[in-house]
Amino acid sequence: MKRVGIVDTTFARYDMAGAAIDELKQLCNVKVERRTVPGIKDLPVEAKRLLDEGNDIVMAFGMPGAEPIDKQCAHEASLGLIMAQLLTNKHIIEVFVFADEAKSEKELAVLAENRAREHARNVYRLLFKPEELTKLAGTGQREGGPDAGPLRR
Amino acid sequence: MKRVGIVDTTFARYDMAGAAIDELKQLCNVKVERRTVPGIKDLPVEAKRLLDEGNDIVMAFGMPGAEPIDKQCAHEASLGLIMAQLLTNKHIIEVFVFADEAKSEKELAVLAENRAREHARNVYRLLFKPEELTKLAGTGQREGGPDAGPLRR
Amino acid sequence: MKRVGIVDTTFARYDMAGAAIDELKQLCNVKVERRTVPGIKDLPVEAKRLLDEGNDIVMAFGMPGAEPIDKQCAHEASLGLIMAQLLTNKHIIEVFVFADEAKSEKELAVLAENRAREHARNVYRLLFKPEELTKLAGTGQREGGPDAGPLRR
Amino acid sequence: MKRVGIVDTTFARYDMAGAAIDELKQLCNVKVERRTVPGIKDLPVEAKRLLDEGNDIVMAFGMPGAEPIDKQCAHEASLGLIMAQLLTNKHIIEVFVFADEAKSEKELAVLAENRAREHARNVYRLLFKPEELTKLAGTGQREGGPDAGPLRR
Amino acid sequence: MKRVGIVDTTFARYDMAGAAIDELKQLCNVKVERRTVPGIKDLPVEAKRLLDEGNDIVMAFGMPGAEPIDKQCAHEASLGLIMAQLLTNKHIIEVFVFADEAKSEKELAVLAENRAREHARNVYRLLFKPEELTKLAGTGQREGGPDAGPLRR
Repeated sequence: MKRVGIVDTTFARYDMAGAAIDELKQLCNVKVERRTVPGIKDLPVEAKRLLDEGNDIVMAFGMPGAEPIDKQCAHEASLGLIMAQLLTNKHIIEVFVFADEAKSEKELAVLAENRAREHARNVYRLLFKPEELTKLAGTGQREGGPDAGPLRR
Repeated sequence: MKRVGIVDTTFARYDMAGAAIDELKQLCNVKVERRTVPGIKDLPVEAKRLLDEGNDIVMAFGMPGAEPIDKQCAHEASLGLIMAQLLTNKHIIEVFVFADEAKSEKELAVLAENRAREHARNVYRLLFKPEELTKLAGTGQREGGPDAGPLRR
Repeated sequence: MKRVGIVDTTFARYDMAGAAIDELKQLCNVKVERRTVPGIKDLPVEAKRLLDEGNDIVMAFGMPGAEPIDKQCAHEASLGLIMAQLLTNKHIIEVFVFADEAKSEKELAVLAENRAREHARNVYRLLFKPEELTKLAGTGQREGGPDAGPLRR
Repeated sequence: MKRVGIVDTTFARYDMAGAAIDELKQLCNVKVERRTVPGIKDLPVEAKRLLDEGNDIVMAFGMPGAEPIDKQCAHEASLGLIMAQLLTNKHIIEVFVFADEAKSEKELAVLAENRAREHARNVYRLLFKPEELTKLAGTGQREGGPDAGPLRR
Repeated sequence: MKRVGIVDTTFARYDMAGAAIDELKQLCNVKVERRTVPGIKDLPVEAKRLLDEGNDIVMAFGMPGAEPIDKQCAHEASLGLIMAQLLTNKHIIEVFVFADEAKSEKELAVLAENRAREHARNVYRLLFKPEELTKLAGTGQREGGPDAGPLRR
């Protein structure tokens, strides 16, 4: 059975991991292993450990704040997640929601829920249906909100 | 036969990979293997996997948005692509088109189509005609738009 | 017995390491090893050495200044700490307090003391009670100040 | 015989590599191997390949544009060149000229020519006369323009 | 006998390495090996070579200019120095003085001299008296200028 690692933070203000796990369970039969770390900069090593321990793919959830320093932290975490992938040759799907992406707390929660679920579908496709992703190539998909769609010529 | 890996995203709004594959097929006889990932930060590990599996070179296509955070994502993806190259000793030709590089959707689509095709020619040269690249050294080539040309003294 | 490495700087203006060690000693029975380096950019290699020498986790304390160049130094240190974790597969809990996070010296000292202690509790949980962290996942924890709490829908 | 690798781009608008090779040939007897890639982000892996294939040092030439995104590309290329050096334990002398370093095309061409030649002299010194570099330590050398000179106390 | 590697640049406008070596010689009996490279981006690989060749620690001296691009170069050099440390498990003490840190050339020269000497003392402590650094932990030490001191509560 395919194994999906999940790592999220106590810093985030929404249980995105829970939403993603629920979505995954509806889509396919996978073994899920979940870990939680304090903040987004703690995600890369925990994601790498999950991959080294045999998970086929990892989802990494984070919710950076709205200040410039939060953007910097997210940047560092993202680079770490990319390095962890290059060291393991496996995907880590980064699911970050920035505090300034929505106008209200409620809207932000909806965005977080939807993005988590849509990225769970991406994980499902990467594991079981890669040809579905290629059908969607260049079509302007956006996780959590309305798709941008393909460019009109 | 030389093998060319292709990786693109569902986030992009134009099928640059399709254009590049078409161009490559006109230029030379190569085996093409295509993969699609959700976004540009997923490109580095997929490109590395394609190289590790025996491809001689990879083209990585992405279309980052126009916001500062999109520039940051592109920066992270670019660093990952450079690291993947250093780990494999093979080229990954990054073909990124930024959403703010053109004034209209139509213009952006034309730019994407042309840049993809011109970089396919670069891949052809790197694989089969490296001396053609040296003839073009320092001549101000620009992929997808008018060349800048050499400096006039 | 679990071993916790501690590394801090002479540049910082508060003994955060002392506070964290005190907190750790109240929470659990661990062996603590402390090292001090001049500034935050010296933290990554010292943290890696502590991990290579057998410590199970490291806490890295720093107090960057308020200027743009200080933010850049903190960024470099953070990236180094993330790389050190990926090379050792162990956590380094970064405890940074920025000089511009508080309005007075007194407030900054209180923040540093509290953040150090709260992160010591994170270290305790990572070592002995990982399930407590998952109970806190997505709840908006903030180390050193009032928690943001979960988003209200 | 010492071997010097040369890598430049078709993006650049001046044949800096040609100038550097001419200068090197006047200074010493070395074997030169030249490669050309499309843009500056393609330099790191090609430089690494040249070093892995036995070159003692590499010169990497690039001419980034004047836009913020060009500065970002140069930053990525520079980091890649530094990583390539750390992986090979050999020097890569980066010779970048930014499009906004001069007021006219002519002035930019002169700067590019002179910087390439002065860095060729640095390569010569690194290979054959390291003690000459130490004599110049702290003297404010500037490649391609007037030297800043040592600070007056 | 402990061995200290020294690497500086011809770009810098003050002989910081000379000052540091003088200070080291007064403090302890160590073997010093000095190398000079053109600019700060050449420091990381030379520092790594000095460490690989058996030096116990390295001091890396640089004096970046005042322009944004100079800050970017310093950032790249700093990241390279951190990576070099992680690859060798040894300290590289970075001694950078920015051209805009002082109001006059004379003031800048004094700062460079003093910072070099104070960091030489840090090297001495790291090699022979690490417990002295821990006594100074959190006390707001500043190399080259007046110390900030510990925070008052």
